[in-house]
Amino acid sequence: MDMTAVHMDEQADFAGDRRLVTRVMESVRQKIAGRMLAPGAKLPSIRRFAETMGVSKSTVVEAYDRLAAEGLIQSRRGSGFYVGGRTAPLSLSELGPRLDRAIDPLWVSRQSLETDDSFLKPGCGWLPPSWMPEGAMRRGLRALARADDSALADYAPPLGLLPLRQLLSRRMSEHGVEAAPDQIMLTESGTQAIDLLCRFLIEPGDAVLVDDPCYFNFRALLRAHRAEVVSVPFTPTGPDVALFAAALTEHRPRLYLTNSALHNPTGATLSPVTAHRLLKLAEQYGLTILEDDIFADFELEPAPRLAAFDGLNRVVHIGSFSKTLSAAGRCGFIAARRDWIEGLIDLKISTAFAGGALSAELVLGVLKDGTYRKHIDSLRERLSRAMGETSARLAALGVTPWILPRAGMFLWCRLPDGLEAAGVAQRALAENIVLAPGNVFSVSQSAGGFMRFNVAQSADPRIYTALAAAMGR
Amino acid sequence: MDMTAVHMDEQADFAGDRRLVTRVMESVRQKIAGRMLAPGAKLPSIRRFAETMGVSKSTVVEAYDRLAAEGLIQSRRGSGFYVGGRTAPLSLSELGPRLDRAIDPLWVSRQSLETDDSFLKPGCGWLPPSWMPEGAMRRGLRALARADDSALADYAPPLGLLPLRQLLSRRMSEHGVEAAPDQIMLTESGTQAIDLLCRFLIEPGDAVLVDDPCYFNFRALLRAHRAEVVSVPFTPTGPDVALFAAALTEHRPRLYLTNSALHNPTGATLSPVTAHRLLKLAEQYGLTILEDDIFADFELEPAPRLAAFDGLNRVVHIGSFSKTLSAAGRCGFIAARRDWIEGLIDLKISTAFAGGALSAELVLGVLKDGTYRKHIDSLRERLSRAMGETSARLAALGVTPWILPRAGMFLWCRLPDGLEAAGVAQRALAENIVLAPGNVFSVSQSAGGFMRFNVAQSADPRIYTALAAAMGR
Repeated sequence: MDMTAVHMDEQADFAGDRRLVTRVMESVRQKIAGRMLAPGAKLPSIRRFAETMGVSKSTVVEAYDRLAAEGLIQSRRGSGFYVGGRTAPLSLSELGPRLDRAIDPLWVSRQSLETDDSFLKPGCGWLPPSWMPEGAMRRGLRALARADDSALADYAPPLGLLPLRQLLSRRMSEHGVEAAPDQIMLTESGTQAIDLLCRFLIEPGDAVLVDDPCYFNFRALLRAHRAEVVSVPFTPTGPDVALFAAALTEHRPRLYLTNSALHNPTGATLSPVTAHRLLKLAEQYGLTILEDDIFADFELEPAPRLAAFDGLNRVVHIGSFSKTLSAAGRCGFIAARRDWIEGLIDLKISTAFAGGALSAELVLGVLKDGTYRKHIDSLRERLSRAMGETSARLAALGVTPWILPRAGMFLWCRLPDGLEAAGVAQRALAENIVLAPGNVFSVSQSAGGFMRFNVAQSADPRIYTALAAAMGR
Repeated sequence: MDMTAVHMDEQADFAGDRRLVTRVMESVRQKIAGRMLAPGAKLPSIRRFAETMGVSKSTVVEAYDRLAAEGLIQSRRGSGFYVGGRTAPLSLSELGPRLDRAIDPLWVSRQSLETDDSFLKPGCGWLPPSWMPEGAMRRGLRALARADDSALADYAPPLGLLPLRQLLSRRMSEHGVEAAPDQIMLTESGTQAIDLLCRFLIEPGDAVLVDDPCYFNFRALLRAHRAEVVSVPFTPTGPDVALFAAALTEHRPRLYLTNSALHNPTGATLSPVTAHRLLKLAEQYGLTILEDDIFADFELEPAPRLAAFDGLNRVVHIGSFSKTLSAAGRCGFIAARRDWIEGLIDLKISTAFAGGALSAELVLGVLKDGTYRKHIDSLRERLSRAMGETSARLAALGVTPWILPRAGMFLWCRLPDGLEAAGVAQRALAENIVLAPGNVFSVSQSAGGFMRFNVAQSADPRIYTALAAAMGR
């Protein structure tokens, strides 16, 4: 095809509607995304596509030219246009079942992270900055400014700063988890810890068990690993053991990813009897358990930990400081069986190199600061008060908690009258309120009538006005 | 087998040598690691293994018991011991061809990171802390201690701190790379940036091109992604273009991962003509290029950047501050085509969640500190002096540079008399000197006679004494 000739022929139309060009481009994009046009496939001729779309040939020419400039399609002289040889980059939303973006597991994260202070965020998963130990952080930073030059400039050793690992070892033993400092590896975050362990332990296509409901980012992360995500209904004392056993028989999962204490989103706590049964099943079926314990510091009385019963044999214990100390200075950790540490170090170096000592030094400084324990004590009280206030205000709207958690920041609530949470969340978003609709937490999509509230982010009365309106009350 | 009976029979030996138990355990571990005992396989009977190893039965019993407690093997009542059913976790060293650990791509990283200050590290890939802008870092930390509470406590937005992205956009344009702030995403490090892009752009089994030699961690990282790593010989002006074209035809790689300016390990700089040819080939074969530009600030005169010629169409530009500012405060970045940013954000949140603002604020503070430019100017001079001194001292030992780089910290040198660098490095390590033998950088294992020296880490005269001895001089 002689492009110049076409351009000349249809020149008169070139000033025409940009919208048509965009529509044609969008149509091609969708065909490629939906694999109706596979990589390398020939696009419809300009004449034919113009007829199909009911637009002029020059519109199609311009659309094809612009798509070619973007690299999505390629022109071959005398032959036409072809879909780029490169297959499309990974799209997480294409790896899972196609979901409405409002119940996509990434929705709440992105709304919480991307909206500014003009938004209220009862759906967000962390504390407001004003609830964090600001004074200790400032003292920690001033102390760092006087640290020796290697703390300021150098890489940390692969396992991370030893004095912090020693402190973590002592803290874990308070929860009954026995982990020597050389079984602890620092990471950039709890999420990076889980990601590293998934890389270490699973292959694409492996089955992984999660709770239903579970933290939505577990779903997003496992999707990035191309795991087959299998969910087990969660009860107020942990996963339903009979259904857990059935899932093990049917899917033979490699991993189970959970929170034992202050489960996200329900706030529930594993009971000792469920813990014991899970570990027996894990033993029987060769299952590894990743226990994500990032809410540990919120607890009033320590709940059972799988890693404590198991002694880090089949259980890997994970933590971070993003929820109780600071999300700004990134630091998480893995406690694992000793014979896995070498392999985890190799994998950490290859994919993230060594961490820096700076955030670890800062976390160490804050944890050792005399005021940290006091801060945590008052935080627990403040959360407990907010829990009572939030549940009372929600009750007035007919929104009722599934259980009343012992501690922590989450209330998992049922909406009244069979209302769909996704729709409510979308209407509230239009009023600058970010909510967390139940199905973002549910692999089985069975939590459409639920919503997670963060009691620390739910003080503003405008939330309840907007929620009532979004629920049509 | 009745374990109790065995225990009783051999009770007298139980106080015996722990070393023997350890030796037996080690032998089993090696058999399992080497797949002589596959997952699920039955271990030799206690009697037989005791004979093989020349130890008492009770020693084997204790070794098996301890391995069972570790979960490596399992006891089945009345039947004996079996290798754990769980397949082994990912071992990077098993994914690639089996190499001597001294030329394994992780060797230099681990030696550099794990050895303490009693080691001299001319093989290490970064500057000594005393060469870094310590004063600016301290001022930056003191300023952070006065920042508002959200900078101290909160997550950063998914793309990362906007003022830093704006500054990076301006800095990149000085190198001719046009990237708007919304095309720039901050990451925890340059390595994490490359890792994220590999997840985004390649599937296991995809071919990826690297230079030969190239930065050894490219090899380790691509191995973690199970890429087919294909290398192209590197010349003083970039990769050999004819062989590059041949590799494209033969392997149809999805990605090419390189440094354009101050190439690691050679210190070479891409020429404009090679850049132009590479981009034409990339266009023709649908290749994406990851240009890792972490040494940019060392340059005296700006070299051509692929991302500048290409306009971030087929090229993704990557940077970090670990080499020129601080490795302790982690911060890297990706500049990519706009239509990839959404997908990269989803992937970053799923696998690492949001970054914190703290390290980004610190980097921003230091870059804006009035002394940073001056620091960089004096750093360049200091490196240039060290380059001259190091090459003179190496020349005295018959160790000759492949080229004399225009700037930076690396000297890629040939050893005299066909000496094997791996052996020299191992002998030097015994003298507390970490060297970087050539084949850790070489996919084709054709750099056995080369070694990379970091001129900033090569001032101590003991290095040359030990090197001479290790070379048998």
